[in-house]
Amino acid sequence: MEPKFFEDVKVGDKLVTPGRTITETDIVLFAGMAGTLEPLFTDMEYVKKSSLFGRRFAQGTLVLSISMGLSVQLGWTQGTAMGFLGIDQLRATKPVFCNDTIHVDVEFTDKKETRHTDRGVVTTRRSVKNQDDEVVMTYMHTMLIRRRSAEGKPAH
Amino acid sequence: MEPKFFEDVKVGDKLVTPGRTITETDIVLFAGMAGTLEPLFTDMEYVKKSSLFGRRFAQGTLVLSISMGLSVQLGWTQGTAMGFLGIDQLRATKPVFCNDTIHVDVEFTDKKETRHTDRGVVTTRRSVKNQDDEVVMTYMHTMLIRRRSAEGKPAH
Amino acid sequence: MEPKFFEDVKVGDKLVTPGRTITETDIVLFAGMAGTLEPLFTDMEYVKKSSLFGRRFAQGTLVLSISMGLSVQLGWTQGTAMGFLGIDQLRATKPVFCNDTIHVDVEFTDKKETRHTDRGVVTTRRSVKNQDDEVVMTYMHTMLIRRRSAEGKPAH
Amino acid sequence: MEPKFFEDVKVGDKLVTPGRTITETDIVLFAGMAGTLEPLFTDMEYVKKSSLFGRRFAQGTLVLSISMGLSVQLGWTQGTAMGFLGIDQLRATKPVFCNDTIHVDVEFTDKKETRHTDRGVVTTRRSVKNQDDEVVMTYMHTMLIRRRSAEGKPAH
Amino acid sequence: MEPKFFEDVKVGDKLVTPGRTITETDIVLFAGMAGTLEPLFTDMEYVKKSSLFGRRFAQGTLVLSISMGLSVQLGWTQGTAMGFLGIDQLRATKPVFCNDTIHVDVEFTDKKETRHTDRGVVTTRRSVKNQDDEVVMTYMHTMLIRRRSAEGKPAH
Amino acid sequence: MEPKFFEDVKVGDKLVTPGRTITETDIVLFAGMAGTLEPLFTDMEYVKKSSLFGRRFAQGTLVLSISMGLSVQLGWTQGTAMGFLGIDQLRATKPVFCNDTIHVDVEFTDKKETRHTDRGVVTTRRSVKNQDDEVVMTYMHTMLIRRRSAEGKPAH
Repeated sequence: MEPKFFEDVKVGDKLVTPGRTITETDIVLFAGMAGTLEPLFTDMEYVKKSSLFGRRFAQGTLVLSISMGLSVQLGWTQGTAMGFLGIDQLRATKPVFCNDTIHVDVEFTDKKETRHTDRGVVTTRRSVKNQDDEVVMTYMHTMLIRRRSAEGKPAH
Repeated sequence: MEPKFFEDVKVGDKLVTPGRTITETDIVLFAGMAGTLEPLFTDMEYVKKSSLFGRRFAQGTLVLSISMGLSVQLGWTQGTAMGFLGIDQLRATKPVFCNDTIHVDVEFTDKKETRHTDRGVVTTRRSVKNQDDEVVMTYMHTMLIRRRSAEGKPAH
Repeated sequence: MEPKFFEDVKVGDKLVTPGRTITETDIVLFAGMAGTLEPLFTDMEYVKKSSLFGRRFAQGTLVLSISMGLSVQLGWTQGTAMGFLGIDQLRATKPVFCNDTIHVDVEFTDKKETRHTDRGVVTTRRSVKNQDDEVVMTYMHTMLIRRRSAEGKPAH
Repeated sequence: MEPKFFEDVKVGDKLVTPGRTITETDIVLFAGMAGTLEPLFTDMEYVKKSSLFGRRFAQGTLVLSISMGLSVQLGWTQGTAMGFLGIDQLRATKPVFCNDTIHVDVEFTDKKETRHTDRGVVTTRRSVKNQDDEVVMTYMHTMLIRRRSAEGKPAH
Repeated sequence: MEPKFFEDVKVGDKLVTPGRTITETDIVLFAGMAGTLEPLFTDMEYVKKSSLFGRRFAQGTLVLSISMGLSVQLGWTQGTAMGFLGIDQLRATKPVFCNDTIHVDVEFTDKKETRHTDRGVVTTRRSVKNQDDEVVMTYMHTMLIRRRSAEGKPAH
Repeated sequence: MEPKFFEDVKVGDKLVTPGRTITETDIVLFAGMAGTLEPLFTDMEYVKKSSLFGRRFAQGTLVLSISMGLSVQLGWTQGTAMGFLGIDQLRATKPVFCNDTIHVDVEFTDKKETRHTDRGVVTTRRSVKNQDDEVVMTYMHTMLIRRRSAEGKPAH
């Protein structure tokens, strides 16, 4: 997909990302990198006996992080993304188990000019779904996107 | 810090986490793991010439992820955390540059019983600050915490 | 960029990938993962005193691997790549130093049908260049690409 | 094995490397590091339904990279390798599946003096084989090797 | 657990750490990072046919390293640890297999003042146990701990 | 170096390993993998203001782990190592700072037959030194080595 400038964004448009399987490697590496060393993610005996789901599942922030990466993989923000502004109403609605495969539905819900003429604010609703098409996480994501008219140019 | 059960949580209480320096290693590894391979995080020529800040900065979701880890490091959720529910009103207010050191102020803002007698819902307001005590990110975080009275026991 | 099927490939067409900065993290991780634990990549005292370049540089296969990733990042093979066949005439023409930023010029030089009607063979010439536009590596790359007419469909 | 200087290399000599099992961890880490985030390597639903092999296999460049590491592990280039020159006629002849174990047959096929008296060019034919002794990849590899007579000394 | 200053340490006191499952990811990453690329840890065909245990097990130093991390996770050294002095009588008594879950019993066996009034020497006996409560490793660990009376303050 | 069987070990023999530079990447990755998330290794503001050395240094167990890898890199245990038995009298005598380069002097100090005729016990004294040849760590290391006469054969 070609990079989208602010002018290219149409409210109501929808994108679907590729899928990504969340592996034990992702979960273990993420626990160490983020520092979320708690029994829910590092002690499988505890997970089996005392957790709500009884088997290894992914950290909510790992699911969020990978869902961001899947959107980047689509290519629409390559060289037009200028900054991350925020997240609203994030809900983790179902566990993502180890070896589940997620993808993301991205819907453009709002665009706003700012006082800077080289950029605009774009909001998307994102629904993360698993291989059975069940929604596992939803959130609103807001970012700065470059305007085509601006002097700044995309990365390539 | 001892693990906190739902009964131990007092609205209004505040915690301060240890600090963590965000290194190039964290930013590079996170880009690969999350898949956020876009020039803002992987092409330093682009960052120098075309980004808002002109030097390497951390992904918003990396800052969020590490802020979660810092809260875990305090120990209050060890064996009492039961699940992540959601995030609201997350705002990235300032860039976190490579080699900045962040810590988190955690304030308990709400606690709610649920129909399950073994757990409750706890909401915290989190302010991520850098080494100059500037707020770089804020968000509300909601999770399930085990009740002391429940049969389930913490991990250790 | 939209995924290209075999039918979409035009000999003579050229693509330019985004850039990627090769960091110390990449070089150190790659040495461990590939197992190329030799003083040229792991002992900086040796590199300073006894290597041809006197400072840290990237493994040739790391440069190759990242050049493959940059091509993937363009999106043209997302869901249409079916397999990697080979590399010819790879030449490492200049060192890639730590913190250099590389990108790749990709030129389609050949396409061939096979007896399988769902795929074809596509050859590209790839020139890896650094931030000063010097060619650091060149190679011919051959892969299987899905045909649009085939029943098999791309990933998304 | 003792490090080999240019003078020690005999055309026709053969070496066999130790084995290395290619794990899910290697494949997942490599995808992130190289940036080869395409469904063939990151989406196991896609791999099962739409790939030629139906199950997880390793990236060609990962197989190549690890085959380089296995040669290094033999010790013959420790402190005598001066630089990587190129690869010719690389063919990926069979898939390497997750958890397969590969080793490499290395045969010295050519050695050439250069105008620099401290080094020479050495070419090897490398056959990467799996646990069933099937050839999965072959290539010719060319590198600079230090001469014993040169002032430069090996690393240890 | 609150950080312990030298004054808080009582010889005879015992701590029990949380558990940690040692995964394939940990073993593979550790082999690359430490450079322990030998068939016992990297070649599963060799492990099956020629090792004492016949299946994948963890490196002794990985078990030691994670046992250190588990002690850190308890929180008692957060901001009071000043330095690592040594290890005595370390014995690897049983293999730790891939996917085993270990925890550590820590017993304070000695404390000594030094000529520096801001610190003291603390020795602990550590028993690493698996999920069946079998002792897999034991060692004596000696470190410098900050005194409460010193000007230096803990990290948070 | 050729693999050494028990019969090849001579008490009094000495080996010197290659060098290895300990990078920020190693220290950051190790902290996450081992779980040693304490301010001494993760918070550079704390390290600058409150640590004994005032700048980033490596974890003791990372130095130990890499010293093990350097011994493996020599090749003498490839396919003859059967198991790790223990460590005695480990002393961390000086800090290893980020970007220091270490190597190891290995001296064979003892060999003992056991009731198993396929193996023997070998003890080495190991001195880890930095780029200024200062001893930073010493320890006695004991392991099982295969006997040549045994039916079991080395890995390659």
